[in-house]
Amino acid sequence: MASTASPSREELHIPTALDNQPLFRGMKAEFRDTFAQSSQIQILSKGTILFLQDDPAEWFYLILSGWVKLFTETMDGDEAVIDMVSNGHMIGDSAILEDGVHSFGAAAVEPVTVIRLPSNLLKQAISEDHQTALAMLGSLSRHRKRQSREIESLTLQNASQRIGCFLLRLCHPEQSMPIELTLPYDKSLIAARLGMKSETFSRALNKLRKETSLAIKGSMVTVSDLEELSGYVCSACSNEFPCKDLHG
Amino acid sequence: MASTASPSREELHIPTALDNQPLFRGMKAEFRDTFAQSSQIQILSKGTILFLQDDPAEWFYLILSGWVKLFTETMDGDEAVIDMVSNGHMIGDSAILEDGVHSFGAAAVEPVTVIRLPSNLLKQAISEDHQTALAMLGSLSRHRKRQSREIESLTLQNASQRIGCFLLRLCHPEQSMPIELTLPYDKSLIAARLGMKSETFSRALNKLRKETSLAIKGSMVTVSDLEELSGYVCSACSNEFPCKDLHG
Repeated sequence: MASTASPSREELHIPTALDNQPLFRGMKAEFRDTFAQSSQIQILSKGTILFLQDDPAEWFYLILSGWVKLFTETMDGDEAVIDMVSNGHMIGDSAILEDGVHSFGAAAVEPVTVIRLPSNLLKQAISEDHQTALAMLGSLSRHRKRQSREIESLTLQNASQRIGCFLLRLCHPEQSMPIELTLPYDKSLIAARLGMKSETFSRALNKLRKETSLAIKGSMVTVSDLEELSGYVCSACSNEFPCKDLHG
Repeated sequence: MASTASPSREELHIPTALDNQPLFRGMKAEFRDTFAQSSQIQILSKGTILFLQDDPAEWFYLILSGWVKLFTETMDGDEAVIDMVSNGHMIGDSAILEDGVHSFGAAAVEPVTVIRLPSNLLKQAISEDHQTALAMLGSLSRHRKRQSREIESLTLQNASQRIGCFLLRLCHPEQSMPIELTLPYDKSLIAARLGMKSETFSRALNKLRKETSLAIKGSMVTVSDLEELSGYVCSACSNEFPCKDLHG
């Protein structure tokens, strides 16, 4: 599986990594400095739980590399994968707006590097620094849009179209054909991320292969006709390829 | 069908209606006064489009009574009902954070009374008034939590459990048995809101009746064993009845 690139030396410098984030960029220097001093780089092994649903929000995290699964768990022990996020994403930051507890859990699905930051400082920065509140608004708003698309997709796209949409989001329209892709993480995780059981995923993937000129071998995917794939996928969506929220 | 109660005389007084909303309550008086002066009460007939997806965000709305459908539409002409909202809800407010265009459409599904408010004034209030930005953050955060639950439900609950969950949210735990409910809007809209085709909805409703002591006649629902219903529904959810986000 293709892992996200390991963080460069520069990215492991906390102040530099924070400066790359809209949340910290416009923040008052006093808060940004305190964040840099009270933060810590952590290298987490596969399977590490960052926090669980209903845990009090003590820390939030900026991912520098690796994939993190956001999930909830039912009484019956089933797991819903709410999202999969990677470098540049922050997780657990909005818990301070939700009674101070995490509304989902987060776990590393491969070796992951994060910066761990204190939640109470974020709460203080938002309440005292207008620019931080505005940056947080922008972040929540992008997230809201991403979730609305997800609800639309779960409602209207069939399983094959959902897999096609997932692959399409890995393609860039200006790439020359054929496009060679590597799946970002394990197929069983892709199935879970798309809300499908493994059997449904396999059947739907076979159907997608038949309907479009798509080849998959292990974790390698070859898209030889992008227009055909986007035609098949986007007919059941209110967006056209390339999505406006492609990398949102 | 049970319509939401018509607005009282007091609610039709714009400043009073605005004061009932967290967004306006802590707002600087100069902004709140300008809002009250530049707002307008509108009585919309069934089917009225408030705005369409990709429309520039000129206005946002506070619903005083009646149900409004939030939706997107695919290239194929299929419609996804993203949400159904009613009195006390604001719609279209977050578009100012999303490139100034609406990311979904909104339509009255019955006679609806709204207050129409100017989007550019909200943009200005958020950028200049810290309390308004914080109130908006609270609102987006509640919305995010609501959407996360929706994604979890679409992923883990079967169709019967989704219908049961919808009904459960109309029940209060302290009500005495049997609980008599009136469906808030048309069954076909409930099906669309839950992301189901009509046939799936009918089959799933029949299954729900068999699995729990539930009776439905027209738009009247009788729940004679709340524990049985919540047991059936909430086993496939990470929340227990009564939901923490019950009226979120």
